[in-house]
Amino acid sequence: MKTKYREFLAIEITPELEGKKVRIAGWVHSVRRVGKIAFLVLRDFTGTIQVTFRVPRDADDETKAKFKELVKKVASLSPESVVMVEGVVRKDPRAPRGVEIVGENVEVLSEAKSPLPLDVAGKVDAHIDTRLAARPIDLRRPESQAVLRLVSLAAKAIRSYLYELNFTEVFTPKIIASGTEGGAQLVPVFYFGKDAFLAQSPQLYKELLTSSLEYVFEIAPAWRHEESDTPYHLAEFISVDVEMAFADYNDVMKVLENVIKRVTDNVRNEGSTWLKILNHEPPEVTLPIPRISYKEAWEIIKSEGFDIEPGEDFGTPELRKLAEVLEKEGKTSGGFFFIVDWPADVRPFYTKRKGKEIIGGRELDLSESFDLNWRHLEISSGSTRIHRREELEKEMSLRGLNPESFEWYLKWYDYGMPPHAGWGMGLQRLMVPIAGIPNVRLATTFPRDMKRLVP
Amino acid sequence: MKTKYREFLAIEITPELEGKKVRIAGWVHSVRRVGKIAFLVLRDFTGTIQVTFRVPRDADDETKAKFKELVKKVASLSPESVVMVEGVVRKDPRAPRGVEIVGENVEVLSEAKSPLPLDVAGKVDAHIDTRLAARPIDLRRPESQAVLRLVSLAAKAIRSYLYELNFTEVFTPKIIASGTEGGAQLVPVFYFGKDAFLAQSPQLYKELLTSSLEYVFEIAPAWRHEESDTPYHLAEFISVDVEMAFADYNDVMKVLENVIKRVTDNVRNEGSTWLKILNHEPPEVTLPIPRISYKEAWEIIKSEGFDIEPGEDFGTPELRKLAEVLEKEGKTSGGFFFIVDWPADVRPFYTKRKGKEIIGGRELDLSESFDLNWRHLEISSGSTRIHRREELEKEMSLRGLNPESFEWYLKWYDYGMPPHAGWGMGLQRLMVPIAGIPNVRLATTFPRDMKRLVP
Repeated sequence: MKTKYREFLAIEITPELEGKKVRIAGWVHSVRRVGKIAFLVLRDFTGTIQVTFRVPRDADDETKAKFKELVKKVASLSPESVVMVEGVVRKDPRAPRGVEIVGENVEVLSEAKSPLPLDVAGKVDAHIDTRLAARPIDLRRPESQAVLRLVSLAAKAIRSYLYELNFTEVFTPKIIASGTEGGAQLVPVFYFGKDAFLAQSPQLYKELLTSSLEYVFEIAPAWRHEESDTPYHLAEFISVDVEMAFADYNDVMKVLENVIKRVTDNVRNEGSTWLKILNHEPPEVTLPIPRISYKEAWEIIKSEGFDIEPGEDFGTPELRKLAEVLEKEGKTSGGFFFIVDWPADVRPFYTKRKGKEIIGGRELDLSESFDLNWRHLEISSGSTRIHRREELEKEMSLRGLNPESFEWYLKWYDYGMPPHAGWGMGLQRLMVPIAGIPNVRLATTFPRDMKRLVP
Repeated sequence: MKTKYREFLAIEITPELEGKKVRIAGWVHSVRRVGKIAFLVLRDFTGTIQVTFRVPRDADDETKAKFKELVKKVASLSPESVVMVEGVVRKDPRAPRGVEIVGENVEVLSEAKSPLPLDVAGKVDAHIDTRLAARPIDLRRPESQAVLRLVSLAAKAIRSYLYELNFTEVFTPKIIASGTEGGAQLVPVFYFGKDAFLAQSPQLYKELLTSSLEYVFEIAPAWRHEESDTPYHLAEFISVDVEMAFADYNDVMKVLENVIKRVTDNVRNEGSTWLKILNHEPPEVTLPIPRISYKEAWEIIKSEGFDIEPGEDFGTPELRKLAEVLEKEGKTSGGFFFIVDWPADVRPFYTKRKGKEIIGGRELDLSESFDLNWRHLEISSGSTRIHRREELEKEMSLRGLNPESFEWYLKWYDYGMPPHAGWGMGLQRLMVPIAGIPNVRLATTFPRDMKRLVP
């Protein structure tokens, strides 16, 4: 969009504009003076362009004096200052994109102090704590920006697929009266003099919506008072939630694997600029993504020498080993695999049971549930949900939850709740394979965790 | 999507399927018995279809007995029960869509209690309080559902336009350390033992992001402890936020009016099913949307007999009258109009000043700011923002805000903040003209206000 500050973006300055006078604006990425010439590399969100300021040889004295001043002014610009530049486009085979601008004027719109809290143009990677503390500056680094551009592309890809399936995008309430899965990680809110909580997930609301809109999805923040300081946990994260009426866990796994496929394909097609900056390729996903049962997974983990009881949830070391074995056997799709049919005891109260099975010599109640993993990382979790009130009440009681405090939710099961199924996915976790990042915080504008409330 | 519960949606049952055996599933919208025939109208999220159960004339006794039972079973189904039905498609010119299903089997998936807390099939409009108290059932009413389908379409249309302009979708933190516009309406959160608040808007964060991603937008919840119980206020609302580097208020007004145009056009094209159910047409918007200055608006309001001081903000009665006058004079576009150049005193601290003007005999400091109204309703608000630290500090102090408590934000203005501008828009408010609803709560899945924390 053309504004009074600029007519062209850096990326739009091409050799075809040779001889044209242009106005651009952006940040002083770097500046260098060589004798009577000043080289300014100007950066905007599309890239960089070199602007060269020099004293013209065959000009009158007045002009020469003016340009002498200009070269001096440019050479003294502090890095990251915001400038507006006018000049003439000139082909230059030595310039990175075969083109530069011969500068004729520069206006400082916003001067940056020195030193900067973080180096933007340099190649040295600062520690993640330093980067997050200076996040507004850190995000000017092309690599940091590229990750957030890919997050935006991923969200777009997810929605585009779900729209095709006739899903309705919904916005469920984030201030709620009772938690979904018990009180441990709830974030309290003081709401008009009442005690309330921030939603850990839209779980109960998206379920209720299957009884009207039927196919619903939401991409929105969710909160957990997360005490574990790991690269994969946030106190505030972006949750992608899908819920479908008249579907079971097999149906929604199909939706999920198609979502993953769409994201990897679209990011590759539309995000090549950002992937190149990150020097990363998202995984090649072919469908179906392999499914392995909890039982098979347990047996592999056990046979690898882990001391694990039948029915136990898997920890990160177990999942690392499992993923390693599956990858070796070619039983993942670009690192992705489903673990299905989990023991009912380790799943939330709304998960539908599936029948019994003997695992490691013990008879276990299983459930119609799944996790989608990328290597050791749990990306998504889902299940067929219980759609009968009495079963829900029983499962709540088994888990020490009081059905009475969920009455606002349970009562709607008296009036025709359809069979339904769904899943939730951490958007920032999905970005670990998509953008090739080691920490979910890097896929977050301004992360919130135990240590961070600002910026 | 085909699942074990259904092969077809109601809308997909067309005369072309004549003679085909189909399985469908949905809710008992109504049931009626006429002699030996039971008529079941089954409803899903795409519409309704009639299923007729009758005893075949020339069948054997066993078959007759079976169908007699079936007719009895269907006739006794309670409204809103969830059923799976099998039968054969049959053309019937008397049926609403020229087609019905001859029922052969019915399975009850979920029985609904009687009486229902709210009538779904009936035409009588319950009071909005009754409807919201039974929202999961209310949303089964085609009119209620249609509004939420249009909300989804509107969000999609907004994003599709902003993607074209190279905007990045961002997710900014919702738990924040200090409020944007003072503490009056802040919702407190208890965050890892620290006092924090829910974001009233992504204002400060989206501004900071213009210094890296440059063009950013977000569609996300925002919170205000809203004490006024009006049809247009919510404690939790969906805020559409746009912020642009190297732009001023004229530039972002152009973006905004194009967003409005895109929404009205796309809703008309893709949402005709829902608009028909609502018996509503969104406003016809032609661009540019007319702009009227605060000064002109003030003079009109004053000349209409209101007792208003120069520089005062406008209340609803004043805006109603103003909109009436402008509509009469053809100075709106489908009811939309901008009021620009507001007195600086009634705008937030980050609003850029514009110079002085005499209004009503008084010299006032104006600002580069605007509201977008639809009739009396403020839909969006925006401005050129201040991009210099010392100006921000001055404006904060003038408004009784302590710059020290905003230091986490202000310090980034030392390191090259670009000139920028933006706006925020209430998504549910936009739905008032788009969906023709009298109350923003109807564009909300489960509204949160002073009175409502459940469902």
